[in-house]
Parts: sequence; C-alpha cells; structure tokens
Amino acid sequence: MSILRVALAQINPTVGAIESNAEKIKDYALRANARGAHIVVFPELALTGYPPEDLLFKPQFLRDGSSRIARLAEQLPPEMAAIVGFADRDKRAPSKIFNAAAVIHQNRVAVVYHKQNLPNYGVFDEQRYFTPGESSQVLIIQNGLIGLTICEDIWAPRGAADDEARQGARLILNLSASPYHAGKSEDRLQMLRERVKETQAIFAYCNLVGGQDELVFDGSSLFMSEEGRLLAMGRAFEEDLLMQDIPWPPALINKPLGERKAVQFTSLPLNLPSPSTAEEPRPPAPAAEDVEEIYSALMLGTRDYVLKNGFQKVVVGLSGGIDSSLVACIAVDALGKENVIGVTMPSRFTSSETRGDAEELAKNLGIEFHALAIEPLQDLFLKSLDPVFRGKPRDLTEENLQARIRGVLLMALSNKFNWLVLTTGNKSEVSVGYCTLYGDTAGGFSVIKDIPKTLVYRLSRWKNRKSPPGPIPESVLIRPPTAELRPDQKDQDSLPEYETLDGIIRLAVEEDKSLDEVVRQGYDEKTVRAVFRMVDRSEYKRRQAPPGVKITPRAFGKDRRMPITQDYRESTDRS
Amino acid sequence: MSILRVALAQINPTVGAIESNAEKIKDYALRANARGAHIVVFPELALTGYPPEDLLFKPQFLRDGSSRIARLAEQLPPEMAAIVGFADRDKRAPSKIFNAAAVIHQNRVAVVYHKQNLPNYGVFDEQRYFTPGESSQVLIIQNGLIGLTICEDIWAPRGAADDEARQGARLILNLSASPYHAGKSEDRLQMLRERVKETQAIFAYCNLVGGQDELVFDGSSLFMSEEGRLLAMGRAFEEDLLMQDIPWPPALINKPLGERKAVQFTSLPLNLPSPSTAEEPRPPAPAAEDVEEIYSALMLGTRDYVLKNGFQKVVVGLSGGIDSSLVACIAVDALGKENVIGVTMPSRFTSSETRGDAEELAKNLGIEFHALAIEPLQDLFLKSLDPVFRGKPRDLTEENLQARIRGVLLMALSNKFNWLVLTTGNKSEVSVGYCTLYGDTAGGFSVIKDIPKTLVYRLSRWKNRKSPPGPIPESVLIRPPTAELRPDQKDQDSLPEYETLDGIIRLAVEEDKSLDEVVRQGYDEKTVRAVFRMVDRSEYKRRQAPPGVKITPRAFGKDRRMPITQDYRESTDRS
Repeated sequence: MSILRVALAQINPTVGAIESNAEKIKDYALRANARGAHIVVFPELALTGYPPEDLLFKPQFLRDGSSRIARLAEQLPPEMAAIVGFADRDKRAPSKIFNAAAVIHQNRVAVVYHKQNLPNYGVFDEQRYFTPGESSQVLIIQNGLIGLTICEDIWAPRGAADDEARQGARLILNLSASPYHAGKSEDRLQMLRERVKETQAIFAYCNLVGGQDELVFDGSSLFMSEEGRLLAMGRAFEEDLLMQDIPWPPALINKPLGERKAVQFTSLPLNLPSPSTAEEPRPPAPAAEDVEEIYSALMLGTRDYVLKNGFQKVVVGLSGGIDSSLVACIAVDALGKENVIGVTMPSRFTSSETRGDAEELAKNLGIEFHALAIEPLQDLFLKSLDPVFRGKPRDLTEENLQARIRGVLLMALSNKFNWLVLTTGNKSEVSVGYCTLYGDTAGGFSVIKDIPKTLVYRLSRWKNRKSPPGPIPESVLIRPPTAELRPDQKDQDSLPEYETLDGIIRLAVEEDKSLDEVVRQGYDEKTVRAVFRMVDRSEYKRRQAPPGVKITPRAFGKDRRMPITQDYRESTDRS
Repeated sequence: MSILRVALAQINPTVGAIESNAEKIKDYALRANARGAHIVVFPELALTGYPPEDLLFKPQFLRDGSSRIARLAEQLPPEMAAIVGFADRDKRAPSKIFNAAAVIHQNRVAVVYHKQNLPNYGVFDEQRYFTPGESSQVLIIQNGLIGLTICEDIWAPRGAADDEARQGARLILNLSASPYHAGKSEDRLQMLRERVKETQAIFAYCNLVGGQDELVFDGSSLFMSEEGRLLAMGRAFEEDLLMQDIPWPPALINKPLGERKAVQFTSLPLNLPSPSTAEEPRPPAPAAEDVEEIYSALMLGTRDYVLKNGFQKVVVGLSGGIDSSLVACIAVDALGKENVIGVTMPSRFTSSETRGDAEELAKNLGIEFHALAIEPLQDLFLKSLDPVFRGKPRDLTEENLQARIRGVLLMALSNKFNWLVLTTGNKSEVSVGYCTLYGDTAGGFSVIKDIPKTLVYRLSRWKNRKSPPGPIPESVLIRPPTAELRPDQKDQDSLPEYETLDGIIRLAVEEDKSLDEVVRQGYDEKTVRAVFRMVDRSEYKRRQAPPGVKITPRAFGKDRRMPITQDYRESTDRS
C-alpha cells in the first residue's frame, strides 16, 4: 500500500490573461511538487479564467490557449500529474469548443476530458459556448482508479461521477468555478455528501478563487471522505494549496455496472514515492459568521475588480450615511487606507451632523478626505435651465440634479487622478430605482448593489463590533436613512420601512413570487403593488448601472435578465 | 378541389402585455375571418411578445398566459383555425416551459406544438428558458396535411419541416420572431429556398414586427411556393395581414419516410367554404435600398422604445455634427416633429458654423429648439475642483467635463418635461470608447449605436437625397468630424480615418478576427494594435450605455458578451 498525495491548487487567475495564468499554474505545480504531491488539480478553466464569455468566440484565443497548454506540459515536472482546466477546440470541427481538463504527465498531454453537463441558468451561459463531452474519463494510477469531473458534472444525481464509480473509481476529482452567494457553501457540502453516498468515493473538489465582474469565487476547496466526512478545507476568499494523502490503491468495492454513457480509461505511469515530508493536517476552520463571510466576499470582489482593471486607488462619495460608510470600510480593508479617497459634497440639505459624520469616518479610517460644495453649481444649473423651465414647480428634477453634480465631480476626480469611483447604492434602492441615474449610480464598481439595506446595517454593526468602537460613527447607525435631497427628507417618505421593503424584494425579485403570493405572506397589498411597480419601472436604471458583487442567490445583472420594455400586469383573474 | 385561404397576421405585440396582445390577436383573427381566411397564423410567442426573457421564470406570468389562451379560444370564430404562439408550461412538471403554438379551433385548443430547436447563440438565450419539444406536429384538414414549425425549427436542414413533409405535409406553417439585421432578408429567403427544395412543400412564414429594446423585428412575412417562388410578401417594419389562397388538398407526392422523431397528427374538422371575395395579389415589393431599409429599422426601433415605455416626446442634444443631425431626423420621422426637441449646448470650442448648423437643422425639421450655454458651468466646476486639482495640467478631464455638463442638462430637461433623451453615439465611437460615460452616452435610447460612422454618412446623404435638399445642412456633411472639446480638435487626431477604423472594427468585433488576420487584410499593424486595445479597454463604457437598435450581424449588447475585467493579449508566437 502506497500513498497518493493530491494537491488542490485554488488559484486566482485573470480572465483572458493566458500567459500570466499559465505562469501561476506552473508556479503552483512546482510548489505542489516540492511538497511531494503526485497529482495537482487546478480549477475549471484555470488557464482562461472563468467565465471568459465571448472571448471564446475568438479562434485565436482558443489557439493561444491550446498552444500554451502544450508548452505548459513541457514546463511541468514530468513525474507528477497536473489536471488543468482550459478551453479545448475540436481540430476537425473548430466550431465545437469544450470546457476541458488536460491531464498533463511526463511532459505531454496524456488525455483531455470534456465537461458533459453544461449549466445554462442563472449567471451561466455555457450552452452558448460549449459542446457537451460524450464520455466520462477514468485515470488508472498504480491499480487505483480516479474519475475526472468538471463543476456541474457532479451537481445532478447519476452523472459522470456515478459512471466513473461504477467502473471502479474510488477517488473523484472535480475542477470547479462555483460562484459565491451567501449560503452556497452549505449547498455545496450537501451536494457533495449526496454524491459521496451515490458513489462511495472520496471527492477532491478544487474551486476557483477571485473576483470577476459580478462574480466572486470563494475557493474553499475540500476533500471529503467516502463516508462524507470533511477531511480538509482550503481557505475562503484567498489562494491556497490544499494537500491530502490518500492510501493507494483504494480497496475495490462492488457496484452494479449501469448502462451509462461511454467511459474512457487512461493509464498514467505514475510512480508513488512516499512523500519525504509529512503534511500538516488542515481540518476545516469553524464556519465564519454569515456577515463576516459576506464582508470578505465584498472585499475580494472589490479588490479584484480594482486591481485586475489596472487601478490602484478608489474614490468614494461620503454622504455621512450608512451605505457610503460601509463602502469606504470595505474599500480600506480591500485596498489599504492609502488607496482610498473620501469626498463629501454637501448641499443646503446636508445637515451638519451628516457632514460631520462623513469627516469623522474618514478620520477613523485614516483616508485622504476632500470637501466640495455643490450649492453654487446647483444654483448655476437652475439659472441656466430657467429659460426652458420657465418657473415650473420644483420636483424630482432638482433632487436628481444634486446627485448628478456629485457624479460629475467624482468622475472629474477619477479622470484627473485615475481613481476608480466606487458607487454606494444598496440592493433595496437599486430594486425600486431609489437612486439617480448618472448621479449616485455613476462609477466603476457598485460594491453593495446586491446587499439589501437591512443587511447593510448588519454588516456595518459587525464591522464596528470587530474592533470596538469601530470606524463608523454611532450616529450613522441610528439616524433614520435620508437621501438629503430636499428639506427634512427621509427614505421612508417614499419607501416602505426597509424591513418590509427587503422582505417584499426577496419574494418578488429573488423568488419570482406573484403579487398575490407576496400579499398572502402578510404584506399590505397597496405596498406590495407599489413595490412591484417600482421594480418593473426601474429596469432601465439597473441596465446602465456598474457591476457589483453577487451576494444573494439572485442578483441583478446577468443573473436576472428582464426586458426594459415590458408591460406585464399580473392578471387579477385567478381562474 | 377547394381553396384553403391562409392569413399571416404579422403583429407588433408588447413584451409582457398579455391582455393587450390577446386583444390584438383577437382583432387580427376577426379581420382575417372577415376576409375569408380559414387559417390565421400569428408570430412566435405572439401572446407574450418576444423575447420575454426572465418574465418566463414567473410562474404567475405563465399561468396568466395559459388562461388567456383558453379565453382566446372562446372568443375566436369557431369555424376558423388560429395558430397562436405562447409560452406553455408542463402541468405535471412546471419547471418545464415550452416555446409553443396553440392550434385553436371550434372554441378550444385542439393541440399544442412545442418548438424543437432552441437557439442559444447571438442574441438568443432560449435554452435558458425552454425545454425542447419531442415531436413534430401535422394538422389534417380535409385530406390535406399541414406541418407546424416555430422559427429556428426550419433554420437547419433535416429538421421538423422535413419530418412533417415525409409524412405528407405539403404546406409548412412557421411562426417566427426573427430579428432584423442588414442583409437578413436575403439569408432568410436563401434558407427558405433550401427548405422548399428539401420538403417540396409550400411555406407560410409569419414573422413578428416591432422594436424590443435592442432588437427590431422586420415582419416581411411571406408565402413561398413548392418551387421556391415568392408568392406574396408582407410589409416590412409595419403590421400587416397577408393572405394567400392555396388549392386544397394539395397533391400527394412520394417522399421516402425517414427514421426521424415522432410526428403527431391532429385532425381539424375545418370546412372550406369558398371565400366570397377575391384577395388582391400581393407580389413582393421591389427590395428597398439597403440604407432605406436600415433607416426604417432605426425608425421603428426608436418609435417602439419610446412609445412602449410610455414616453411621447424625446430630446436630442444637437451639436451641429452629423451623428446628432441623423438622430434628430430619425426621431422626427419616427415620432413626428411636434414630439422632438433639439437642444444645442455650445462651449467656447463650439464654432459658430456648427452652432448655426444645429439651429438650421432644427428649423429645417420644424422642431422646438433651445440653446443652453455650458461655459459658465464649466468654469464653476473647474473652480470648485481647483482645491483638489491644484493646478494640474489640462487633460481629458476637462473635455469629459463638458460632455457631462451637457448630459446633466439633458437629463434635467428629461426629468422636468418627461422627454426621453436620445443619445447620438455611433458604432465607431462606441467600439473604441471615443465618448464620455455619463456625458454624451447619457440617455434612454442610443439610436445609432450599431451604425458605423461611414454608414452614418450614407444614411444622412440618403435622407437628404430623398427630398432634396433635405434637412441636414450640406456643411454638416462635408466638415471633418470633431468632438469640439478642445481648440481645433478633429476626430482624426485621436482615431484612424473612419474608413480604416470601420474596416478594422468589422473584422475585429463582428468577425472575431485576430490582430494578425486583420493586418494581413492590409491594415497598418500599429493602427490595428491601437484599435484592438481601445475596443478591449472600453467595455466598461459599453456596459453602462443605453440600448439601441441592432443593425449589424453582431451588435454590442447581448449579441456580444465580453467580460469587462480581462487581460487577453494575443500571443505573438504562431507555433
């Protein structure tokens, strides 16, 4: 009996950056090799980053990827096996592209596996790009059998892992790019436990880490025993190299052979010298509090968006309210206080308290801070418009104008100093359109766009609790929310209480419940009707909003594709 | 031998508006009935509008649709058959949704056909929503056989139409929602000729008409004989009811029975009284000049976006340049001159010529016109920013500022008067990011975003030629293009000549050619490299741009889904 040491290289590639991703893959493979790993597994599409979207339609992109895989094979230690996710192109039918895993051993690509189950729901569009593979793949190493799978392949019962287990595979490798949302890790463990029960195999699950536009991949790669026990777990929201020793070959068990898809077998002439160094066991860390996990996701999503797009510094408009305070905290934790600039832009409706709070927050965070008055600009805009407005009464126009002047100032700072503007709208506002297009929605990245207001409070309180008294002034946490765009304005003049609003939004937006069904959950019908209407009518604003991190099971963006032009009115006839 | 009179009801529904769409369907069915039609065919998903996108995930939306179909059956003349596109839900497995056609006859739904071939490329996401149907459908009417198909079903060889023809169908009905792009009608005719050759059947092709966000459906429904002759063609870009008399039953021909998918047969007990009135023959009109066709598509897309979103009037910033001149012409033709407002917003860099041209265009078009100076606002913004800018040199910031002040003014007018802002950027600018986010890109609808600059010129000259001398001042057509954001600025200071730029963009963006391949077409390598880089680097601007009409085979928007965050650099290694 020998030991098979398996390494999961949970890396953070950049979409499209084939060359630097390949360098990272080489680097991790060498580190795994130095630590005695016989096999190193990389995430799904590690070479291209995930999701490469329409880059996949560029034939040159696919050719570059394939030739880089060939070169990688020459560069990796010949004695180990590396399983690397890439986009493979059928040489005979170049319009066929596969979401693939290259098995590299002895300086060549021994075999390529093609993902069979292509997700095309939620944020996924894989059937737009890929052709499904037609056979499962088993690797034979020293009389032990290993099944290969890619992400979605293992999410449904009786899939590739089952096929492979029926052929004798007792270890299933999975290359994943599984995007984070709150609660996803529990779903993932549940799914893996079901697959383990089905296959009686050990699972080695290697997940991508990093932020990509709207998505954050949380890593948290893991090994699960054939009894469903968590053997080891990688770090969340960070790169990691997770190792596990598996007695080899595993005992064979009797499983009925199913009549399933074809299974292909490939022998890898791998020697299994006993690793000279023992690996520290890596038992799973206690699960993070949900708010902490979400905060980490927001940090990683923000950091990767900023840095991968070539920015170093960000600027945040600080209103003295809770949304911008939380965004500033996240930015400082993600990028360092020296890379965050706060700007307050008070108007005549800005109270001295909120203005003071903005300044105090900046001081607490230790960030560069500027104040720019918008009053004279507002006056001059109204004067310029007066010949056309001709004394028409004040309305939302004047409120939006203030927000847009602020947007213009922030964008001017962005242009002049190459600071990326972070916007500060939350999911409650974004849902009902309680925001000004090109005003407070103007910016490069919308950090908390998928965070409902009630969760904004929880995250802010958690942030303060973490190192008391925390950076956010207490007055920010207790003041009734206000946009301060007219005298004595409160959010609740225009919107239901946030507890109510967020409850309705969850049912209507995330769960597609009907108006009737929401009312039956105990909400006031008039309120529900108003919220439904606001959500429908503000799709055009969301379409022009910057991307932000997906946190809930259903975010706005490519997760929820609503027409702008539509006039659905629920039938009141329940026949 | 009798006559079967078939009507194609090429209607313009509104997405989601089930009730008003159903009323329109009823109205057209009654008109077809009054004209002696035995069968009336509606476009794909006529009841829901196309594409309903994630509305399809709302169970209540599907229930409302199904019950409206049942009610429609009661409302239509029992003696005729109506084929109506709708979204069908599997009652036993409600997560299965079908792109369906209800065959209504004698006040009931006689049978429902499910689309088998679901497009998931380009602008289409049908595999996100629908389950493919598993059998073809033949209707039996007085010993004659009719095959049912929906859109994509007939775009590939050996599909549903072939199955049905092998069972004896000599007339194939097709319900389509086939989006327009320049040249699409020729593709469509070519495809139909191939299907006719394959099936030896008559084709009755009913296409949707209308604008929906990025898409325009052009109608142009048609009948094609079993010899591939165009029998009749409906109007382009307008609703229409197209009739054709077909001798019935058609002669049977011998076709080998293929081993294909299941085919279901349904008899419709339809009487075929001879129609009392003869129908005027509707031979296809001579094909419109390509610029005329494109202009019509832009008009319809603009009109439907404005009206279906509840607006009546639009405002256009008139720079005196060709882009805004063309957009104003389209708006006037789409909505009427009383519904278009022109605003010129000169700065110190605006020449008296361009300013004069803006005014002259407005006069020629007969539209309301306002002038708002931006100079004082620009000065005041720079003064406000001075404490932070601290004498840093002028750069793009000051140019963008002017564009953003104009954006704020237009949006203020939009808010105050409920005028939708039309933006005026063309595809050449949008491709390379030669535009200011929240500046000239600010607005609700981006009329010419898919029109390359060289085509902007052709369309403008065509517009003037149509009723000489035309509304666009000649000086606008001959002046070198300029953004007028700094002294003596010309577009060609920053960009290649538009002939060159548009050539590169077509190859790179629409055809996914590599840098190498573009250079091999004869373009200068440094220029190509610069254009590729500009295209990649401006994805973030496009993501926040308003929708506009798709005109080319590959528009920005859901037709081309590029990551914002990406760092693909083509390998220079051609191994």
